Amino acid sequence: MAKKKKSDKREAKAAPPTVRDLLRVGPEFDLTAVDPRRVVAGPTDKVLARAEAAALEGEVTDLQERLFAESKQGGKRRLLIVLQGMDTSGKGGAVKAIDRVCEPIGLRMTSFGAPTKEEKRRHFLWRIDRAMPPAGAIGIFDRSHYEDVLIVRVRNLVPEDVWSGRYDEINAWEQKWSEQGVVFLKCMLHISKEEQQQRLLDRLADPSKHWKYNPGDVDERQLWDQYQAAYQAALTRCSTAYAPWYVIPADRKWHRDWLLTQLVAETLREMNPQYPTMDFDVAAEKARLAAEKARLAAG
Amino acid sequence: MAKKKKSDKREAKAAPPTVRDLLRVGPEFDLTAVDPRRVVAGPTDKVLARAEAAALEGEVTDLQERLFAESKQGGKRRLLIVLQGMDTSGKGGAVKAIDRVCEPIGLRMTSFGAPTKEEKRRHFLWRIDRAMPPAGAIGIFDRSHYEDVLIVRVRNLVPEDVWSGRYDEINAWEQKWSEQGVVFLKCMLHISKEEQQQRLLDRLADPSKHWKYNPGDVDERQLWDQYQAAYQAALTRCSTAYAPWYVIPADRKWHRDWLLTQLVAETLREMNPQYPTMDFDVAAEKARLAAEKARLAAG
Repeated sequence: MAKKKKSDKREAKAAPPTVRDLLRVGPEFDLTAVDPRRVVAGPTDKVLARAEAAALEGEVTDLQERLFAESKQGGKRRLLIVLQGMDTSGKGGAVKAIDRVCEPIGLRMTSFGAPTKEEKRRHFLWRIDRAMPPAGAIGIFDRSHYEDVLIVRVRNLVPEDVWSGRYDEINAWEQKWSEQGVVFLKCMLHISKEEQQQRLLDRLADPSKHWKYNPGDVDERQLWDQYQAAYQAALTRCSTAYAPWYVIPADRKWHRDWLLTQLVAETLREMNPQYPTMDFDVAAEKARLAAEKARLAAG
Repeated sequence: MAKKKKSDKREAKAAPPTVRDLLRVGPEFDLTAVDPRRVVAGPTDKVLARAEAAALEGEVTDLQERLFAESKQGGKRRLLIVLQGMDTSGKGGAVKAIDRVCEPIGLRMTSFGAPTKEEKRRHFLWRIDRAMPPAGAIGIFDRSHYEDVLIVRVRNLVPEDVWSGRYDEINAWEQKWSEQGVVFLKCMLHISKEEQQQRLLDRLADPSKHWKYNPGDVDERQLWDQYQAAYQAALTRCSTAYAPWYVIPADRKWHRDWLLTQLVAETLREMNPQYPTMDFDVAAEKARLAAEKARLAAG
């Protein structure tokens, strides 16, 4: 065992850490120690970061097509990208960054707002189950089941003995889905309180953005620390081997997008989906179509 | 009344026909008279057509944002783009063309394959209901409830007295949803039998596309005329004032994409969504945030 550890360490030294290694939430994780303005890896300027992210499109769409192809032969795997973050943290921009390197026909987008009347009557995971991406697809959740241990906890929308049991429920639920082929990529877009303030001021300065502004957002800011504590709990209690959390410093939009694009590419590479082997005779099929072509031409 | 008609005619003469006017299926429609290679309107070359389509991005995303903003204040409207067409007709490319001019966070993509066991036990519209886009969003259906009067009719998957009743069922269902704010944009991507043959040969020529090829596709081509007849029936029986059908000549991909992009822009323009009037005091909110900023700075 000691020997194995040593060799693991040597390997870790040899290969540079992946973005997933850099951002993964481990047992010692402390959200207050993460600087939302920090550039963690990769290009330190906007133009280069945008170019590097865009350059991944060919590889990512190829992996995405393989994933879909795999599902046509009975494969059950799919990718689910969960996006969480404080208001103004840039979930719309993050979705755009993912879309830029993917084929849109394979994306399954879901936004979770306040639950409807029917959703309130059901278990909190009922509406999440219904939104799970089919095999071969890439799902994106704009907010998620984590709201049920975030706003619900901070605002006391259910009693503590209810929400406090949800961390284990979520883990069991994610494990069940991961056994059914779902690969989780859970990302928290982490902005600073100052950055949020600036973004709210920007919304007020642009009349076409006023509809996005809600005076309640400023009241909600009074609860900033409670929200950070709720995130800390969700991130550490629900970052598992089968569904790890990643925290993305998100004050700089171009860096947020670069990190997210790398996370998507790394995850798909590790999934390593393969084109299924087809059991038809290519030459015979070509001949069939060609013969038909001759018949068509002959009228 | 006669006078009104006259003035309508004069107006129709003055304004050039919209793409919707050119492609809309009316009572006299005959699918066999539509040439899938024809350039119906707009640029006649690929580069210009691509540029013109791309130039709509700013306007379309603005309209899309207004539509979403409207829903935040209780608006129920949403757009549903239905894509139908023979195999290889280019639904993936069409989705890409729509995505190019839209914000991806507002798109709701659904692909309908052969129904699952559970779906088979239910009414054919059950799975369609579950996939309807929420208010403020743009839904895209890759195939749809129309398969239940297309492949189902051609392949006799249910008795004739069942599928023959579905045209009226579909109309009633679409009318119900249109009263609930759904604006339908139903598009058939119309390719020629020769073009399909070429695209199938292209798939065979590229090993990474073999997974898309199914020897059954060639058998299915034997039923080409029956499929065209089934389309003719669906297009004419289900092109209504509240949910018209449009037939897009789709042999030329760049023209297909140009037409589709125009249809989306024209439809959103006619919907003319508006930013809601907000009832907060912008100056007061700015002051609140600024005061908070001063406090933050003071530490």
